[in-house]
Amino acid sequence: MSKRQIKLGLSMRQLGYHAGGWRHPAVPADGAMRIAHFAHIAQTAERGLFDMVFLADGLGLRQRDNPPGSLARSDRNVELEPLTMLAALAMVTSHIGLVATASTSYNEPFHIARKFASIDHISGGRAGWNIVTSWSEEEAWNFNRDRHFDYDERYDRAAEFVEVTKGLWDSWDQDAFVRDKAEGLFFRPDGLHVLNHAGPHFQVRGPLTVERPVQGYPVLVQAGSSEAGQEIAAASADVCFVAHTDLGDAQAYYRSVKSKLARHGRDEDALKILPGLLAIVAPTEAEARNKYEELQALIHPLVGLAHVYGPMGDLSAYPIDGPVPVPNDPQHRSRAKVLLDMAARNNWTIRDLYLAASMGRGHRTVIGTPGQVADAMQEWVDGRGADGFNIIPATLPGGIEDFVDLVVPELQDRGVYRTVYEGATLRENLGVPRPASRHA
Amino acid sequence: MSKRQIKLGLSMRQLGYHAGGWRHPAVPADGAMRIAHFAHIAQTAERGLFDMVFLADGLGLRQRDNPPGSLARSDRNVELEPLTMLAALAMVTSHIGLVATASTSYNEPFHIARKFASIDHISGGRAGWNIVTSWSEEEAWNFNRDRHFDYDERYDRAAEFVEVTKGLWDSWDQDAFVRDKAEGLFFRPDGLHVLNHAGPHFQVRGPLTVERPVQGYPVLVQAGSSEAGQEIAAASADVCFVAHTDLGDAQAYYRSVKSKLARHGRDEDALKILPGLLAIVAPTEAEARNKYEELQALIHPLVGLAHVYGPMGDLSAYPIDGPVPVPNDPQHRSRAKVLLDMAARNNWTIRDLYLAASMGRGHRTVIGTPGQVADAMQEWVDGRGADGFNIIPATLPGGIEDFVDLVVPELQDRGVYRTVYEGATLRENLGVPRPASRHA
Repeated sequence: MSKRQIKLGLSMRQLGYHAGGWRHPAVPADGAMRIAHFAHIAQTAERGLFDMVFLADGLGLRQRDNPPGSLARSDRNVELEPLTMLAALAMVTSHIGLVATASTSYNEPFHIARKFASIDHISGGRAGWNIVTSWSEEEAWNFNRDRHFDYDERYDRAAEFVEVTKGLWDSWDQDAFVRDKAEGLFFRPDGLHVLNHAGPHFQVRGPLTVERPVQGYPVLVQAGSSEAGQEIAAASADVCFVAHTDLGDAQAYYRSVKSKLARHGRDEDALKILPGLLAIVAPTEAEARNKYEELQALIHPLVGLAHVYGPMGDLSAYPIDGPVPVPNDPQHRSRAKVLLDMAARNNWTIRDLYLAASMGRGHRTVIGTPGQVADAMQEWVDGRGADGFNIIPATLPGGIEDFVDLVVPELQDRGVYRTVYEGATLRENLGVPRPASRHA
Repeated sequence: MSKRQIKLGLSMRQLGYHAGGWRHPAVPADGAMRIAHFAHIAQTAERGLFDMVFLADGLGLRQRDNPPGSLARSDRNVELEPLTMLAALAMVTSHIGLVATASTSYNEPFHIARKFASIDHISGGRAGWNIVTSWSEEEAWNFNRDRHFDYDERYDRAAEFVEVTKGLWDSWDQDAFVRDKAEGLFFRPDGLHVLNHAGPHFQVRGPLTVERPVQGYPVLVQAGSSEAGQEIAAASADVCFVAHTDLGDAQAYYRSVKSKLARHGRDEDALKILPGLLAIVAPTEAEARNKYEELQALIHPLVGLAHVYGPMGDLSAYPIDGPVPVPNDPQHRSRAKVLLDMAARNNWTIRDLYLAASMGRGHRTVIGTPGQVADAMQEWVDGRGADGFNIIPATLPGGIEDFVDLVVPELQDRGVYRTVYEGATLRENLGVPRPASRHA
């Protein structure tokens, strides 16, 4: 029996995910505004035969300056816009998938259908859309609203948004454009389908003014963590990006989502589940540990304290290397209790607390040799907790360079990772089917 | 006294502007969906030292199938989306400006500010935005509306939209990002400006999550033909794309707009006026004429009749080479009268009528040798009817290849056109100033 193959995505936002990473000497601190930074990252991931690079996104500066002075010390503020960036990266890569986040709460289906279809054509079938509903008031404030949509409305709107978008992608049959010069016929009239959608959230006539995407639809990505989210993912997602730190949780989630696919007439392999994995890798375990400690030391205390501000309130008046005080803020009592219990159990200082809280951001973290990282990956894939991983680099471009140079050869030696791209499109490389048109 | 220098843009939508061009053997009929087509066009224009390439746009299939069967015989239906395309083209060009149309009626200022700022950074300061308000019901139908905005609301909204967009571009001072690794300070807090805009059409808090554009603001382009449009252009546009067929009209417009600039504290040269110019050029006049006739013969009668459908109604039941009948449709009586008078004066058949009506689409047309085309251009520029031209190619890529190979050397020989790019950004090449931030 052949070994379970590992799928890989790279989350390449900004300068990586470590809160102090931008201060590291090897990190180009202005990289988030430079296309050359991302071109190098995407090309490195492509050299490592990754399935895709992925851009998270938010539609506003989501951090408030809590505690005062923390905002100006964080690098999470300016960056290139994801859809224009993916189109640009399509021109300097040739195999890797290009996935961007776009919100269903603060966009229009016509624009989203059009832009992703365009990127899919520009890239020769490598586009993917990470579907999110957004979550912060800061985003609502940039789009004529005082408040973010509430949960039910947000998800109703998202479901309708995706249906409209798919309908627009099906506007033209794949073989509609005959472009017969002698006859003077550009398209077959029966290959054009006008959507005429009229629903509670959207009225969209169509047709889309782009040919059907190369992949039928671009690859559809979702988080799908809640029960409702799992149902939506099972119905129509090709990839789930999830966050688990525990194999048991990952396995329970994996079983739950995969078991829902049959009801939608879908094969178990039609949906790939990729938990996030923050890997810090070096030739020896000691070097990997050193890398990690070096980064942790670069977190400015105000930036660290911002990571615990939500549950704990402002701790900046307390001695940073003193004991963790009981917070006054009653809004997040349960989350504060978790942190306080951990602090008490480990005898943590305030610094220890924020260093722990800022790490991984809910994703599994592995620090070690290429062999140890490969073991950790195989354990979850063979244990049916994952089909692969969305690699969360601590810093960029170092995080992806290390992974490609050290971990990829190890995975290839073990026979669990490709040595050449299997297909031309992202769907072909992921091994997920190309959706037929509703009119086919 | 040095000679007046000519500025050049290229309107590079789809396969060119001739209604029968897609049927020509030299035209790649599927080009509008292929990035390689546009990369070749943009690179050719850059070889010809053009200031910019320009993409017109509409947010829907704007043609109805009138007369029946005409829609499927036209190539104006699918194409790549302009903003993703410009970002892609930024990676395969290095000097030429990249200008796209985006509508203020069916977009949000935050998205538009963000995407153009991103393209400006990706391209190193070569982005431009052609500001339009859209005009068709077909576009409204794709964005949750039964009808297009009426004139006043559309222009009110556009003015506020542009103000918000500029405000977002000024979110961060040019020198806000110190990225001091030792100190742990990413930006100076006093370099961040939160817009907090609350107006009749938009409530946008800001800040933008992109650094201030390389050019301060991307180059702002407008049509500005009406009196209201001229005022807006004089207040804030860097370039006007206009359509004139008569030098007197062009001069009157030029005088009118330029005279308004001083009131806004702007120099006469701060706004460039570029009429469209459809040039069909060949080494000899006879060859140019042949090219033109060859194209005209490729217009399918149903496509030709679609060009006169608005004023004249459906003429497809009449003999195509017979006399022009008096139409029944009373909706467009005045436009029909113009066409009927022309037909009577010239003794035109129906075919003659649609061939004339489809030509140039309101833009000046010149058919001739490189010397004749250069003469025509100099006449308008020296006569203060233009600062240059937006070249409207009959077909692509042939139209730009011919222009660059034949007309550009002629203009250079005459000393009226650059032999090397003057600057690094589109503003520098156009010779329009870089706007200061409102917070500077």
